[in-house]
Amino acid sequence: MKLSLKISELIDALKTLPGIGPKSAKRMALSLLSSNKEIGLNLSKSIESAILSIQLCSKCFVLNDKEICEICSSSDRDNNSICVIESTSDLYSIEETSEFNGRYFVLNGLLSPIDNIGTDELRIEKLLDLIDAFNAKEVILALNSTLEGEATAYFLFDKLKKKDVVVTRIAQGVPAGGDLNYVDNNTLRRAISFRTELK
Amino acid sequence: MKLSLKISELIDALKTLPGIGPKSAKRMALSLLSSNKEIGLNLSKSIESAILSIQLCSKCFVLNDKEICEICSSSDRDNNSICVIESTSDLYSIEETSEFNGRYFVLNGLLSPIDNIGTDELRIEKLLDLIDAFNAKEVILALNSTLEGEATAYFLFDKLKKKDVVVTRIAQGVPAGGDLNYVDNNTLRRAISFRTELK
Repeated sequence: MKLSLKISELIDALKTLPGIGPKSAKRMALSLLSSNKEIGLNLSKSIESAILSIQLCSKCFVLNDKEICEICSSSDRDNNSICVIESTSDLYSIEETSEFNGRYFVLNGLLSPIDNIGTDELRIEKLLDLIDAFNAKEVILALNSTLEGEATAYFLFDKLKKKDVVVTRIAQGVPAGGDLNYVDNNTLRRAISFRTELK
Repeated sequence: MKLSLKISELIDALKTLPGIGPKSAKRMALSLLSSNKEIGLNLSKSIESAILSIQLCSKCFVLNDKEICEICSSSDRDNNSICVIESTSDLYSIEETSEFNGRYFVLNGLLSPIDNIGTDELRIEKLLDLIDAFNAKEVILALNSTLEGEATAYFLFDKLKKKDVVVTRIAQGVPAGGDLNYVDNNTLRRAISFRTELK
């Protein structure tokens, strides 16, 4: 027997979510249909309402529900440093650490020829504008330590030379709680090469 | 910074999906909001439309879009055997094997005191009615080989004694492609005890 059309359509739609394959999508669909209708209808409504109300902040390009986001419009944040990130989710991860109190800028991806992301896709000019707007002194590159992240970091470093800013990059090394026996060679190599002095 | 209210609401709604924790829900929410709006709106619509149109078949209780499902209303299926399953998803798994051409019956769970599923929650009377309706000769119990599945199987076996049907259970043993070195003790014990004669 084939699946009912509505169920197949639902499974196909769920498969568009990141990390969801056919088996998980089927499980989700049947769970949505078996449990309380209100829960599923609420999910449907939340998706629609979020999609229709969320926009990009016109200054830092973070996903939020205002024309200018909470961080860009806050007077409590430090104008001196701008943290450059790949996407909105990185902002939430960094905010959770409470280690940074400056401004953010969402780059819109990392240089990646395989995904057709070239230098034109990144919002370089907007970043330069934001540096001027806040009169920032430091640009922190908080990008993935992947090949794409490294390439993007060096590209940005080059572009930022014409501005009077210090360009820094978040540290690379052994993760917290990391056992050296289980750390890969590249990580260990960088941890040694970027060693810090105990004072 | 806190997440925008709409994003938090969306994350909470996504967390109601099976197997989705806070991290996956956040990733899904931001992916829905970053990618093409049409894809997300289509997901929202599919969920709503499936929930509003799907019902339980009045004979076998499988989730489908008709009053009586395709299998129950088909004349090509064998009336002699009824396969008892826990939920609709098991039907799809069994149909994919093309090994069974009879009728189905969805039990609505397995006996599990911890989940408050007792004998009253299972649709025993409806199963007995279906056996009469199809004048079935065999009831196949295709239940999980967990403690709950075993308990339910023995309970059903007892209830079915008053009917003139053969009660069978799907085989338990080493999974296809299974390496005996990696098979757990209980599985191996059952595989030995349910061994079959080569003829």
